[in-house]
Amino acid sequence: MTASISFIRIGADGVCSANERAVAAEVPIAVEFNGIGYAVLMATPADLDDLVTGFALAERLVEGADELPEIDAHQTERGIIVRATLVPERAARAADRVRHRVSESSCGLCGIENLEQALRPLPRVTATSEAQDVAIFAALAALRDHQPLNRETGGVHAAALVASDGTIRLAREDVGRHNAFDKLIGAMARQGLDWDGGFALLSSRCSFELVEKAALAGCPLLVTVSAPTALAVERAREAGVRLVVLARSDAMLAVAP
Amino acid sequence: MTASISFIRIGADGVCSANERAVAAEVPIAVEFNGIGYAVLMATPADLDDLVTGFALAERLVEGADELPEIDAHQTERGIIVRATLVPERAARAADRVRHRVSESSCGLCGIENLEQALRPLPRVTATSEAQDVAIFAALAALRDHQPLNRETGGVHAAALVASDGTIRLAREDVGRHNAFDKLIGAMARQGLDWDGGFALLSSRCSFELVEKAALAGCPLLVTVSAPTALAVERAREAGVRLVVLARSDAMLAVAP
Repeated sequence: MTASISFIRIGADGVCSANERAVAAEVPIAVEFNGIGYAVLMATPADLDDLVTGFALAERLVEGADELPEIDAHQTERGIIVRATLVPERAARAADRVRHRVSESSCGLCGIENLEQALRPLPRVTATSEAQDVAIFAALAALRDHQPLNRETGGVHAAALVASDGTIRLAREDVGRHNAFDKLIGAMARQGLDWDGGFALLSSRCSFELVEKAALAGCPLLVTVSAPTALAVERAREAGVRLVVLARSDAMLAVAP
Repeated sequence: MTASISFIRIGADGVCSANERAVAAEVPIAVEFNGIGYAVLMATPADLDDLVTGFALAERLVEGADELPEIDAHQTERGIIVRATLVPERAARAADRVRHRVSESSCGLCGIENLEQALRPLPRVTATSEAQDVAIFAALAALRDHQPLNRETGGVHAAALVASDGTIRLAREDVGRHNAFDKLIGAMARQGLDWDGGFALLSSRCSFELVEKAALAGCPLLVTVSAPTALAVERAREAGVRLVVLARSDAMLAVAP
Protein backbone atom coordinates (compact mmCIF):
# COMPACT_ATOMS: atom_id res chain seq x y z
CA MET A 1 0.00 0.00 0.00
CA THR A 2 3.06 2.26 0.32
CA ALA A 3 6.48 2.68 -1.25
CA SER A 4 9.51 4.10 0.49
CA ILE A 5 11.01 7.05 -1.37
CA SER A 6 14.28 8.89 -0.75
CA PHE A 7 13.82 12.64 -0.44
CA ILE A 8 16.08 15.54 0.37
CA ARG A 9 14.42 17.75 2.97
CA ILE A 10 15.17 21.40 2.24
CA GLY A 11 14.51 23.69 5.20
CA ALA A 12 13.55 27.32 4.75
CA ASP A 13 16.77 28.04 6.69
CA GLY A 14 18.73 26.39 3.87
CA VAL A 15 19.61 23.27 5.85
CA CYS A 16 19.27 20.09 3.80
CA SER A 17 19.01 16.52 5.07
CA ALA A 18 18.28 13.08 3.68
CA ASN A 19 14.70 11.98 4.34
CA GLU A 20 13.20 8.54 3.76
CA ARG A 21 9.43 8.62 3.63
CA ALA A 22 6.51 6.39 2.76
CA VAL A 23 4.24 7.51 -0.06
CA ALA A 24 0.88 6.02 -0.94
CA ALA A 25 0.60 3.58 -3.81
CA GLU A 26 -1.63 4.58 -6.74
CA VAL A 27 -2.17 1.62 -9.01
CA PRO A 28 -4.22 1.09 -12.19
CA ILE A 29 -7.10 -1.25 -11.33
CA ALA A 30 -8.79 -2.69 -14.41
CA VAL A 31 -12.34 -3.68 -13.52
CA GLU A 32 -13.96 -6.46 -15.55
CA PHE A 33 -17.58 -7.48 -15.17
CA ASN A 34 -18.28 -10.96 -16.55
CA GLY A 35 -15.08 -10.78 -18.60
CA ILE A 36 -15.76 -7.41 -20.22
CA GLY A 37 -13.33 -4.59 -19.47
CA TYR A 38 -15.46 -1.87 -17.93
CA ALA A 39 -13.13 0.77 -16.49
CA VAL A 40 -9.65 1.44 -15.16
CA LEU A 41 -9.61 3.08 -11.73
CA MET A 42 -6.46 4.62 -10.25
CA ALA A 43 -6.63 3.56 -6.63
CA THR A 44 -4.85 2.51 -3.48
CA PRO A 45 -4.66 -1.29 -3.81
CA ALA A 46 -6.44 -2.20 -0.55
CA ASP A 47 -10.02 -3.38 0.02
CA LEU A 48 -10.49 -4.01 -3.68
CA ASP A 49 -13.60 -6.16 -3.13
CA ASP A 50 -15.17 -3.20 -1.34
CA LEU A 51 -14.03 -0.82 -4.08
CA VAL A 52 -15.50 -2.83 -6.93
CA THR A 53 -18.75 -3.46 -5.03
CA GLY A 54 -19.13 0.26 -4.26
CA PHE A 55 -18.21 1.17 -7.83
CA ALA A 56 -20.81 -1.24 -9.25
CA LEU A 57 -23.43 0.26 -6.92
CA ALA A 58 -22.47 3.84 -7.90
CA GLU A 59 -22.61 2.84 -11.59
CA ARG A 60 -26.09 1.40 -10.89
CA LEU A 61 -24.99 -1.96 -12.30
CA VAL A 62 -26.17 -3.82 -9.19
CA GLU A 63 -28.50 -3.14 -6.32
CA GLY A 64 -26.73 -5.11 -3.63
CA ALA A 65 -23.51 -6.95 -2.85
CA ASP A 66 -25.29 -10.29 -3.34
CA GLU A 67 -25.51 -9.49 -7.05
CA LEU A 68 -21.70 -9.75 -7.26
CA PRO A 69 -21.16 -13.33 -6.09
CA GLU A 70 -17.48 -13.47 -7.06
CA ILE A 71 -14.72 -10.87 -7.07
CA ASP A 72 -11.10 -11.88 -7.73
CA ALA A 73 -8.04 -9.66 -7.92
CA HIS A 74 -5.05 -10.61 -10.09
CA GLN A 75 -1.75 -8.78 -9.86
CA THR A 76 -0.06 -8.19 -13.21
CA GLU A 77 3.08 -6.35 -14.17
CA ARG A 78 1.19 -3.20 -15.11
CA GLY A 79 -1.50 -3.10 -12.45
CA ILE A 80 -4.27 -5.17 -10.94
CA ILE A 81 -7.17 -6.80 -12.75
CA VAL A 82 -10.30 -7.27 -10.68
CA ARG A 83 -12.70 -9.76 -12.23
CA ALA A 84 -16.23 -9.55 -10.87
CA THR A 85 -19.07 -11.89 -11.73
CA LEU A 86 -22.55 -10.41 -11.98
CA VAL A 87 -25.61 -12.55 -11.32
CA PRO A 88 -27.27 -13.54 -14.63
CA GLU A 89 -30.11 -11.01 -14.25
CA ARG A 90 -27.60 -8.11 -14.06
CA ALA A 91 -25.18 -9.26 -16.76
CA ALA A 92 -27.21 -7.59 -19.50
CA ARG A 93 -27.08 -4.25 -17.68
CA ALA A 94 -23.26 -4.11 -17.76
CA ALA A 95 -23.07 -5.28 -21.37
CA ASP A 96 -25.72 -2.68 -22.32
CA ARG A 97 -23.78 0.06 -20.60
CA VAL A 98 -20.62 -0.81 -22.55
CA ARG A 99 -22.61 -1.03 -25.79
CA HIS A 100 -24.29 2.28 -24.97
CA ARG A 101 -20.91 3.92 -24.54
CA VAL A 102 -19.95 2.54 -27.93
CA SER A 103 -22.94 3.99 -29.70
CA GLU A 104 -22.42 7.32 -27.94
CA SER A 105 -18.96 7.58 -29.42
CA SER A 106 -19.45 6.02 -32.81
CA CYS A 107 -22.39 8.21 -33.77
CA GLY A 108 -20.42 11.33 -32.88
CA LEU A 109 -22.89 12.33 -30.20
CA CYS A 110 -22.87 16.09 -29.81
CA GLY A 111 -22.11 18.11 -26.71
CA ILE A 112 -25.78 18.72 -25.90
CA GLU A 113 -26.56 15.02 -25.70
CA ASN A 114 -23.40 14.41 -23.69
CA LEU A 115 -24.44 17.10 -21.20
CA GLU A 116 -27.81 15.44 -20.76
CA GLN A 117 -26.08 12.23 -19.72
CA ALA A 118 -23.67 13.96 -17.32
CA LEU A 119 -26.22 14.65 -14.60
CA ARG A 120 -28.73 11.83 -14.33
CA PRO A 121 -31.75 12.05 -12.00
CA LEU A 122 -31.04 10.90 -8.47
CA PRO A 123 -33.26 8.86 -6.16
CA ARG A 124 -34.73 10.80 -3.25
CA VAL A 125 -33.22 9.81 0.10
CA THR A 126 -35.97 9.07 2.63
CA ALA A 127 -33.82 8.04 5.62
CA THR A 128 -32.94 10.67 8.20
CA SER A 129 -29.95 11.12 10.47
CA GLU A 130 -30.44 11.45 14.20
CA ALA A 131 -26.90 12.64 14.83
CA GLN A 132 -26.61 15.77 16.98
CA ASP A 133 -23.95 18.38 16.24
CA VAL A 134 -21.86 17.14 19.15
CA ALA A 135 -21.72 13.68 17.54
CA ILE A 136 -20.32 15.20 14.34
CA PHE A 137 -17.61 17.06 16.26
CA ALA A 138 -16.79 13.83 18.11
CA ALA A 139 -16.45 11.89 14.84
CA LEU A 140 -14.24 14.61 13.37
CA ALA A 141 -11.92 14.38 16.37
CA ALA A 142 -11.80 10.59 16.09
CA LEU A 143 -11.28 10.34 12.31
CA ARG A 144 -7.50 10.61 12.46
CA ASP A 145 -7.31 7.36 14.43
CA HIS A 146 -9.00 5.62 11.49
CA GLN A 147 -6.53 6.95 8.89
CA PRO A 148 -3.41 4.82 9.33
CA LEU A 149 -2.36 5.19 5.69
CA ASN A 150 -2.78 8.95 5.71
CA ARG A 151 -0.80 9.22 8.95
CA GLU A 152 2.04 7.35 7.29
CA THR A 153 1.99 9.03 3.89
CA GLY A 154 -0.20 12.16 3.82
CA GLY A 155 -2.44 12.97 0.86
CA VAL A 156 -4.80 10.01 1.38
CA HIS A 157 -8.54 10.48 1.84
CA ALA A 158 -10.83 8.70 4.28
CA ALA A 159 -14.55 7.93 4.24
CA ALA A 160 -16.26 6.77 7.43
CA LEU A 161 -19.63 5.38 8.46
CA VAL A 162 -20.50 7.11 11.70
CA ALA A 163 -23.20 6.05 14.18
CA SER A 164 -25.71 8.64 15.38
CA ASP A 165 -23.74 9.02 18.65
CA GLY A 166 -20.56 9.94 16.73
CA THR A 167 -18.83 6.55 16.98
CA ILE A 168 -16.92 5.61 13.82
CA ARG A 169 -18.18 2.17 12.83
CA LEU A 170 -16.16 1.63 9.65
CA ALA A 171 -13.62 3.60 7.62
CA ARG A 172 -11.82 3.16 4.33
CA GLU A 173 -8.86 5.03 2.81
CA ASP A 174 -7.75 5.76 -0.75
CA VAL A 175 -5.67 8.30 -2.66
CA GLY A 176 -8.91 9.22 -4.45
CA ARG A 177 -11.85 10.62 -2.51
CA HIS A 178 -14.32 8.90 -4.85
CA ASN A 179 -12.61 5.56 -4.35
CA ALA A 180 -12.59 6.01 -0.57
CA PHE A 181 -16.35 6.57 -0.58
CA ASP A 182 -16.96 3.68 -3.02
CA LYS A 183 -14.92 1.45 -0.70
CA LEU A 184 -16.96 2.51 2.32
CA ILE A 185 -20.29 1.99 0.56
CA GLY A 186 -19.08 -1.32 -0.89
CA ALA A 187 -17.88 -2.51 2.52
CA MET A 188 -21.24 -1.57 4.08
CA ALA A 189 -23.08 -3.51 1.38
CA ARG A 190 -20.84 -6.55 1.81
CA GLN A 191 -21.14 -6.48 5.62
CA GLY A 192 -24.88 -5.75 5.60
CA LEU A 193 -24.47 -2.43 7.43
CA ASP A 194 -26.86 0.49 7.02
CA TRP A 195 -26.76 4.17 8.04
CA ASP A 196 -29.08 3.47 11.02
CA GLY A 197 -29.62 7.15 11.73
CA GLY A 198 -25.92 7.92 11.39
CA PHE A 199 -23.98 9.66 8.63
CA ALA A 200 -20.99 9.62 6.26
CA LEU A 201 -17.84 11.60 7.12
CA LEU A 202 -15.32 12.37 4.36
CA SER A 203 -11.92 13.99 4.77
CA SER A 204 -12.15 15.69 1.38
CA ARG A 205 -13.94 18.55 -0.26
CA CYS A 206 -17.56 17.99 -1.30
CA SER A 207 -17.85 17.56 -5.06
CA PHE A 208 -21.10 16.63 -6.77
CA GLU A 209 -19.99 13.03 -7.44
CA LEU A 210 -19.75 12.39 -3.71
CA VAL A 211 -23.29 13.70 -3.27
CA GLU A 212 -24.47 11.39 -6.06
CA LYS A 213 -22.81 8.40 -4.41
CA ALA A 214 -24.41 9.37 -1.08
CA ALA A 215 -27.86 9.66 -2.68
CA LEU A 216 -27.52 6.29 -4.44
CA ALA A 217 -26.47 4.70 -1.14
CA GLY A 218 -29.42 6.25 0.71
CA CYS A 219 -27.13 8.27 2.97
CA PRO A 220 -29.14 10.95 4.82
CA LEU A 221 -26.25 13.19 5.90
CA LEU A 222 -22.86 13.80 4.28
CA VAL A 223 -20.20 15.62 6.31
CA THR A 224 -17.01 16.80 4.59
CA VAL A 225 -13.92 18.47 5.99
CA SER A 226 -13.46 20.84 3.07
CA ALA A 227 -15.63 23.12 0.93
CA PRO A 228 -18.49 22.13 -1.38
CA THR A 229 -19.06 23.17 -4.97
CA ALA A 230 -22.26 24.89 -6.04
CA LEU A 231 -23.30 21.80 -7.99
CA ALA A 232 -22.81 19.58 -4.95
CA VAL A 233 -25.18 21.80 -2.96
CA GLU A 234 -27.72 21.77 -5.79
CA ARG A 235 -27.59 17.99 -6.24
CA ALA A 236 -27.87 17.43 -2.47
CA ARG A 237 -31.03 19.55 -2.35
CA GLU A 238 -32.51 17.60 -5.26
CA ALA A 239 -31.80 14.25 -3.64
CA GLY A 240 -32.67 15.19 -0.06
CA VAL A 241 -29.14 14.58 1.24
CA ARG A 242 -28.24 16.92 4.13
CA LEU A 243 -24.79 18.49 3.82
CA VAL A 244 -22.42 19.71 6.51
CA VAL A 245 -19.18 21.10 5.08
CA LEU A 246 -15.93 22.74 6.17
CA ALA A 247 -16.29 20.63 9.30
CA ARG A 248 -13.40 21.57 11.60
CA SER A 249 -12.78 21.27 15.31
CA ASP A 250 -14.07 24.79 16.05
CA ALA A 251 -17.05 25.07 13.72
CA MET A 252 -18.84 23.57 10.72
CA LEU A 253 -21.33 24.81 8.13
CA ALA A 254 -24.69 23.12 7.55
CA VAL A 255 -26.34 23.90 4.23
CA ALA A 256 -29.57 25.69 5.07
CA PRO A 257 -32.68 23.73 3.99
CA MET B 1 -17.69 31.47 -11.11
CA THR B 2 -19.35 31.33 -7.69
CA ALA B 3 -22.79 30.89 -6.18
CA SER B 4 -23.90 32.32 -2.89
CA ILE B 5 -25.23 29.66 -0.51
CA SER B 6 -27.00 30.08 2.83
CA PHE B 7 -25.38 28.07 5.61
CA ILE B 8 -25.92 27.72 9.32
CA ARG B 9 -22.61 28.02 11.12
CA ILE B 10 -22.50 25.62 14.06
CA GLY B 11 -19.80 26.41 16.58
CA ALA B 12 -18.18 23.74 18.74
CA ASP B 13 -19.58 25.78 21.66
CA GLY B 14 -23.10 25.11 20.37
CA VAL B 15 -23.68 28.65 19.14
CA CYS B 16 -25.40 28.76 15.72
CA SER B 17 -25.59 31.66 13.31
CA ALA B 18 -26.71 32.31 9.76
CA ASN B 19 -23.82 32.39 7.30
CA GLU B 20 -23.90 33.43 3.65
CA ARG B 21 -20.92 32.19 1.72
CA ALA B 22 -19.66 31.92 -1.82
CA VAL B 23 -18.96 28.43 -3.15
CA ALA B 24 -17.14 27.62 -6.36
CA ALA B 25 -19.13 26.68 -9.45
CA GLU B 26 -18.54 23.21 -10.88
CA VAL B 27 -20.15 22.94 -14.29
CA PRO B 28 -20.31 20.19 -16.92
CA ILE B 29 -18.22 21.32 -19.90
CA ALA B 30 -18.87 19.26 -23.03
CA VAL B 31 -15.85 19.47 -25.30
CA GLU B 32 -16.39 18.99 -29.04
CA PHE B 33 -13.58 18.80 -31.56
CA ASN B 34 -14.75 19.49 -35.11
CA GLY B 35 -18.34 18.76 -34.07
CA ILE B 36 -17.65 15.41 -32.42
CA GLY B 37 -18.39 15.11 -28.71
CA TYR B 38 -15.06 14.13 -27.13
CA ALA B 39 -15.44 14.43 -23.35
CA VAL B 40 -17.36 16.10 -20.55
CA LEU B 41 -15.14 17.85 -18.01
CA MET B 42 -16.46 19.05 -14.65
CA ALA B 43 -14.76 22.40 -14.21
CA THR B 44 -14.87 25.95 -12.97
CA PRO B 45 -16.30 27.90 -15.93
CA ALA B 46 -13.46 30.40 -16.35
CA ASP B 47 -10.65 30.46 -18.89
CA LEU B 48 -12.36 27.81 -20.98
CA ASP B 49 -10.20 28.55 -24.04
CA ASP B 50 -7.15 27.82 -21.92
CA LEU B 51 -8.78 24.69 -20.48
CA VAL B 52 -9.65 23.17 -23.85
CA THR B 53 -6.24 24.06 -25.32
CA GLY B 54 -4.46 22.45 -22.36
CA PHE B 55 -6.76 19.45 -22.49
CA ALA B 56 -6.11 18.95 -26.22
CA LEU B 57 -2.36 19.14 -25.56
CA ALA B 58 -2.60 16.65 -22.66
CA GLU B 59 -4.67 14.32 -24.86
CA ARG B 60 -1.92 14.67 -27.51
CA LEU B 61 -4.52 15.78 -30.08
CA VAL B 62 -2.53 18.89 -30.97
CA GLU B 63 1.04 20.04 -30.60
CA GLY B 64 0.42 23.76 -30.20
CA ALA B 65 -2.32 26.33 -29.68
CA ASP B 66 -2.11 27.31 -33.36
CA GLU B 67 -3.62 23.93 -34.22
CA LEU B 68 -6.87 25.03 -32.54
CA PRO B 69 -7.76 28.11 -34.60
CA GLU B 70 -11.25 28.50 -33.15
CA ILE B 71 -12.72 27.82 -29.72
CA ASP B 72 -16.27 28.94 -28.88
CA ALA B 73 -18.18 28.43 -25.65
CA HIS B 74 -21.99 28.14 -25.64
CA GLN B 75 -23.98 28.27 -22.43
CA THR B 76 -26.89 25.81 -22.33
CA GLU B 77 -29.36 24.96 -19.61
CA ARG B 78 -27.40 21.90 -18.52
CA GLY B 79 -23.86 23.14 -18.87
CA ILE B 80 -21.46 24.65 -21.34
CA ILE B 81 -20.52 23.32 -24.75
CA VAL B 82 -17.09 24.28 -25.98
CA ARG B 83 -16.67 23.79 -29.70
CA ALA B 84 -13.08 23.70 -30.87
CA THR B 85 -11.91 23.53 -34.45
CA LEU B 86 -8.82 21.48 -35.20
CA VAL B 87 -6.65 22.30 -38.18
CA PRO B 88 -7.29 19.82 -41.02
CA GLU B 89 -4.06 17.87 -40.42
CA ARG B 90 -5.14 17.13 -36.80
CA ALA B 91 -8.82 16.38 -37.43
CA ALA B 92 -8.11 12.74 -38.20
CA ARG B 93 -6.31 12.31 -34.89
CA ALA B 94 -9.37 13.29 -32.83
CA ALA B 95 -11.71 11.18 -34.95
CA ASP B 96 -9.30 8.22 -34.68
CA ARG B 97 -9.19 8.58 -30.91
CA VAL B 98 -12.97 8.46 -30.68
CA ARG B 99 -13.09 5.49 -33.06
CA HIS B 100 -10.34 3.80 -31.07
CA ARG B 101 -12.39 4.19 -27.89
CA VAL B 102 -15.29 2.60 -29.71
CA SER B 103 -13.35 -0.44 -30.79
CA GLU B 104 -11.91 -0.78 -27.30
CA SER B 105 -15.37 -1.08 -25.86
CA SER B 106 -17.16 -2.97 -28.58
CA CYS B 107 -14.69 -5.83 -28.75
CA GLY B 108 -14.93 -6.29 -24.99
CA LEU B 109 -11.28 -5.54 -24.47
CA CYS B 110 -9.98 -7.32 -21.41
CA GLY B 111 -8.41 -5.83 -18.31
CA ILE B 112 -4.86 -6.64 -19.45
CA GLU B 113 -5.20 -4.61 -22.64
CA ASN B 114 -6.90 -1.79 -20.74
CA LEU B 115 -3.99 -1.69 -18.28
CA GLU B 116 -1.53 -1.42 -21.15
CA GLN B 117 -3.30 1.71 -22.34
CA ALA B 118 -3.50 3.30 -18.90
CA LEU B 119 0.15 4.27 -18.68
CA ARG B 120 1.49 5.35 -22.05
CA PRO B 121 5.18 6.14 -22.59
CA LEU B 122 6.09 9.75 -21.81
CA PRO B 123 8.47 12.03 -23.69
CA ARG B 124 11.73 12.78 -21.89
CA VAL B 125 11.95 16.37 -20.64
CA THR B 126 15.24 17.94 -21.71
CA ALA B 127 14.75 21.46 -20.30
CA THR B 128 16.15 22.24 -16.87
CA SER B 129 15.05 24.60 -14.13
CA GLU B 130 17.48 27.16 -12.77
CA ALA B 131 15.29 28.02 -9.78
CA GLN B 132 17.07 28.00 -6.42
CA ASP B 133 15.32 26.74 -3.28
CA VAL B 134 14.79 30.31 -2.11
CA ALA B 135 12.83 31.04 -5.30
CA ILE B 136 10.50 28.11 -4.58
CA PHE B 137 9.85 29.35 -1.03
CA ALA B 138 9.19 32.85 -2.43
CA ALA B 139 6.66 31.51 -4.96
CA LEU B 140 4.92 29.48 -2.25
CA ALA B 141 4.52 32.59 -0.14
CA ALA B 142 3.18 34.55 -3.11
CA LEU B 143 0.75 31.91 -4.42
CA ARG B 144 -2.16 32.97 -2.20
CA ASP B 145 -2.25 36.38 -3.90
CA HIS B 146 -2.91 34.59 -7.18
CA GLN B 147 -5.85 32.54 -5.85
CA PRO B 148 -8.75 35.00 -5.72
CA LEU B 149 -11.36 32.28 -6.23
CA ASN B 150 -9.92 30.06 -3.53
CA ARG B 151 -9.76 32.98 -1.11
CA GLU B 152 -13.43 33.58 -1.72
CA THR B 153 -14.66 29.98 -1.69
CA GLY B 154 -12.02 27.54 -0.41
CA GLY B 155 -11.52 24.16 -2.03
CA VAL B 156 -10.21 25.51 -5.36
CA HIS B 157 -6.83 24.52 -6.76
CA ALA B 158 -4.24 26.74 -8.40
CA ALA B 159 -1.51 26.05 -10.94
CA ALA B 160 1.18 28.67 -11.54
CA LEU B 161 4.01 29.27 -13.99
CA VAL B 162 6.91 30.56 -11.91
CA ALA B 163 10.04 32.29 -13.21
CA SER B 164 13.43 31.05 -12.04
CA ASP B 165 13.65 33.93 -9.55
CA GLY B 166 10.37 32.87 -7.90
CA THR B 167 8.10 35.46 -9.54
CA ILE B 168 4.67 34.08 -10.43
CA ARG B 169 4.16 34.90 -14.11
CA LEU B 170 0.74 33.34 -14.65
CA ALA B 171 -1.78 31.39 -12.56
CA ARG B 172 -5.06 29.59 -13.18
CA GLU B 173 -7.67 28.23 -10.78
CA ASP B 174 -10.19 25.40 -10.95
CA VAL B 175 -12.10 23.09 -8.61
CA GLY B 176 -10.15 20.25 -10.23
CA ARG B 177 -6.38 20.11 -9.95
CA HIS B 178 -6.08 18.55 -13.41
CA ASN B 179 -8.19 21.30 -14.92
CA ALA B 180 -6.13 23.99 -13.19
CA PHE B 181 -2.94 22.57 -14.70
CA ASP B 182 -4.56 22.12 -18.13
CA LYS B 183 -5.66 25.77 -17.96
CA LEU B 184 -2.14 26.91 -17.09
CA ILE B 185 -0.53 24.87 -19.84
CA GLY B 186 -3.21 25.97 -22.32
CA ALA B 187 -2.76 29.62 -21.36
CA MET B 188 1.01 29.32 -21.81
CA ALA B 189 0.54 27.79 -25.26
CA ARG B 190 -1.92 30.49 -26.28
CA GLN B 191 0.29 33.29 -24.98
CA GLY B 192 3.50 31.80 -26.36
CA LEU B 193 5.09 31.47 -22.89
CA ASP B 194 7.67 28.81 -22.02
CA TRP B 195 9.18 27.56 -18.75
CA ASP B 196 12.37 29.59 -19.40
CA GLY B 197 14.26 27.92 -16.57
CA GLY B 198 11.32 28.29 -14.19
CA PHE B 199 8.85 25.75 -12.86
CA ALA B 200 5.22 24.80 -12.20
CA LEU B 201 3.72 25.26 -8.74
CA LEU B 202 0.48 23.44 -7.85
CA SER B 203 -1.57 23.83 -4.68
CA SER B 204 -2.63 20.18 -4.75
CA ARG B 205 -1.18 16.78 -4.07
CA CYS B 206 1.01 15.24 -6.74
CA SER B 207 -0.83 12.49 -8.60
CA PHE B 208 0.64 10.74 -11.63
CA GLU B 209 -1.65 12.57 -14.09
CA LEU B 210 -0.10 15.89 -13.09
CA VAL B 211 3.35 14.45 -13.74
CA GLU B 212 2.20 13.24 -17.16
CA LYS B 213 0.84 16.69 -18.01
CA ALA B 214 4.13 18.26 -16.86
CA ALA B 215 6.15 15.86 -19.02
CA LEU B 216 4.00 16.49 -22.10
CA ALA B 217 4.38 20.25 -21.56
CA GLY B 218 8.16 19.95 -21.22
CA CYS B 219 8.06 21.22 -17.63
CA PRO B 220 11.42 20.57 -15.94
CA LEU B 221 10.31 20.97 -12.29
CA LEU B 222 6.93 20.37 -10.66
CA VAL B 223 6.38 21.69 -7.13
CA THR B 224 3.27 20.62 -5.20
CA VAL B 225 1.98 21.69 -1.80
CA SER B 226 0.81 18.23 -0.80
CA ALA B 227 2.10 14.64 -0.95
CA PRO B 228 2.94 12.57 -4.04
CA THR B 229 1.84 9.05 -4.85
CA ALA B 230 4.37 6.32 -5.55
CA LEU B 231 3.30 6.24 -9.21
CA ALA B 232 3.82 10.00 -9.56
CA VAL B 233 7.40 9.60 -8.33
CA GLU B 234 7.98 6.67 -10.71
CA ARG B 235 6.55 8.49 -13.74
CA ALA B 236 8.54 11.64 -12.93
CA ARG B 237 11.77 9.63 -12.87
CA GLU B 238 10.91 8.02 -16.22
CA ALA B 239 10.19 11.38 -17.84
CA GLY B 240 13.00 13.37 -16.25
CA VAL B 241 10.66 15.76 -14.42
CA ARG B 242 12.12 16.92 -11.10
CA LEU B 243 9.63 16.82 -8.20
CA VAL B 244 9.46 18.90 -5.04
CA VAL B 245 6.52 17.95 -2.82
CA LEU B 246 4.96 18.82 0.53
CA ALA B 247 6.25 22.33 -0.14
CA ARG B 248 5.39 24.42 2.91
CA SER B 249 6.71 27.64 4.35
CA ASP B 250 9.16 25.88 6.69
CA ALA B 251 10.43 23.04 4.51
CA MET B 252 9.90 21.04 1.35
CA LEU B 253 10.92 17.60 0.06
CA ALA B 254 12.84 17.12 -3.18
CA VAL B 255 12.67 13.63 -4.67
CA ALA B 256 16.22 12.33 -4.64
CA PRO B 257 17.58 11.71 -8.17
